[in-house]
Amino acid sequence: MTALTNPGSDRVRAVRGLAQRPVRKRTGRFLVEGPQGVREAVRWAPERVVDLYLTADAMQRYAVDIVEPARAAGLWVHEATPEVLAAMADTDAPQGLVGVVERSEPTLAEVLSAGPRLLVLLTNVRDPGNAGTVIRGADAVGADGVLVSDSSVDVTSPKVVRSTAGSLFHLPVVTGLATGVTLSTLAAHGIRTLAADGAGTVDLPDVELTGPHCWVMGNEAWGLPERTRSACDEVVRVPIHGKAESLNLAMAATVCLYASAGVLRPR
Amino acid sequence: MTALTNPGSDRVRAVRGLAQRPVRKRTGRFLVEGPQGVREAVRWAPERVVDLYLTADAMQRYAVDIVEPARAAGLWVHEATPEVLAAMADTDAPQGLVGVVERSEPTLAEVLSAGPRLLVLLTNVRDPGNAGTVIRGADAVGADGVLVSDSSVDVTSPKVVRSTAGSLFHLPVVTGLATGVTLSTLAAHGIRTLAADGAGTVDLPDVELTGPHCWVMGNEAWGLPERTRSACDEVVRVPIHGKAESLNLAMAATVCLYASAGVLRPR
Repeated sequence: MTALTNPGSDRVRAVRGLAQRPVRKRTGRFLVEGPQGVREAVRWAPERVVDLYLTADAMQRYAVDIVEPARAAGLWVHEATPEVLAAMADTDAPQGLVGVVERSEPTLAEVLSAGPRLLVLLTNVRDPGNAGTVIRGADAVGADGVLVSDSSVDVTSPKVVRSTAGSLFHLPVVTGLATGVTLSTLAAHGIRTLAADGAGTVDLPDVELTGPHCWVMGNEAWGLPERTRSACDEVVRVPIHGKAESLNLAMAATVCLYASAGVLRPR
Repeated sequence: MTALTNPGSDRVRAVRGLAQRPVRKRTGRFLVEGPQGVREAVRWAPERVVDLYLTADAMQRYAVDIVEPARAAGLWVHEATPEVLAAMADTDAPQGLVGVVERSEPTLAEVLSAGPRLLVLLTNVRDPGNAGTVIRGADAVGADGVLVSDSSVDVTSPKVVRSTAGSLFHLPVVTGLATGVTLSTLAAHGIRTLAADGAGTVDLPDVELTGPHCWVMGNEAWGLPERTRSACDEVVRVPIHGKAESLNLAMAATVCLYASAGVLRPR
């Protein structure tokens, strides 16, 4: 196998272009950087992996957990020079490997047909780190899916993908949803909608969390609009005990999700 | 009052220099950017505020909650052009105001003399966003202080200060601590030390959290070294239910702190 050596080649430019949303939209593909994301893609979504690019060093280092399973699954594994990797990647240090993955999302109907017990709906979430961290947190508590409104950040942007630390390939993520219609659809399926907001009227410890429910998270700066809050079954406040004005979005979501998972309650 | 108009002046360069750790160390000062941080500094630590710089727009917008209280406290409030603000700030958008604040920290002995019930110790935490978010989370649950090891990120770096969203001025933050000695000192004061680590032997819901205790958090990538874990009273694991390998540091700390605050337990 000959290593790719030309950082200016069409192939390299095509991969690099995936950092841009219009290119991702047109091609239906996105970029996964670094061992954690690539390993989870190969493990949980090999049918969506288009190409893998690794330096010679990375080929050796990740032989067992990435390269062998990828080849066994019939994936394209390409060797590339460090210069080529650097030209492909959005980050300075993708640790010697990137993957190109096809976007493939379930519909809301598909997620609902599985009888979900715990979901999160992100509305107007703009910060990539927050969105990715919530997806990772939803994965950690074993949630059944993450729903993302049409006004939120693109979950296949490099920063979101990195922040999910591979969780993007672990649970269904539905995007492009209209918030109002989604809330009605959830209600029609018997899923309680719980808006998490500093303006909440119920404190988190007082909320009933045994039945199927969906946490609804708003924008980092301005929270949830009144319209959305009033369309939810409850508006829930994570208690603040000190002098802090608020929690950031990812922290609030993590606390709500762990409350749902019940792990913080005495057994 | 004449506005500062020269982005190349010595004063502007001196402020801008505070983005660099050696300059902060030499001067004992650091930079606070944006309304949230500046407001909290003026409100909770006015004796440490050296100078405030605001654009004419910001003077008006923050007249009531920042400028008036600052002047009432006898602080130096300077008007500056947007170009001067941009030259002073580390961020692109400090929203028209920055403050220069003197570093002033309590000692560990001072924090302990207040009979703390809940503390966090950050050891080898390198990511500014994580460190700042943990300080914000500790504030939110009403913790009595944050302890930071000598091998961790500088909590007065612009990124950490921003991530704390003003919480840096709400609770004692002690820095430069040696981890081993600190753990012994905490033990000698009857404060249980709880290492949060994926290698934990006790699950978070099973840990006794009623007495005084200190959460011990390790590095983002490699967690806590064996030496530190074995020096702690318990090594605690935040349960992971899904396919995620781990939580990020700030998420794990938030869950542990909220467990300590008891708000996630039924009343």
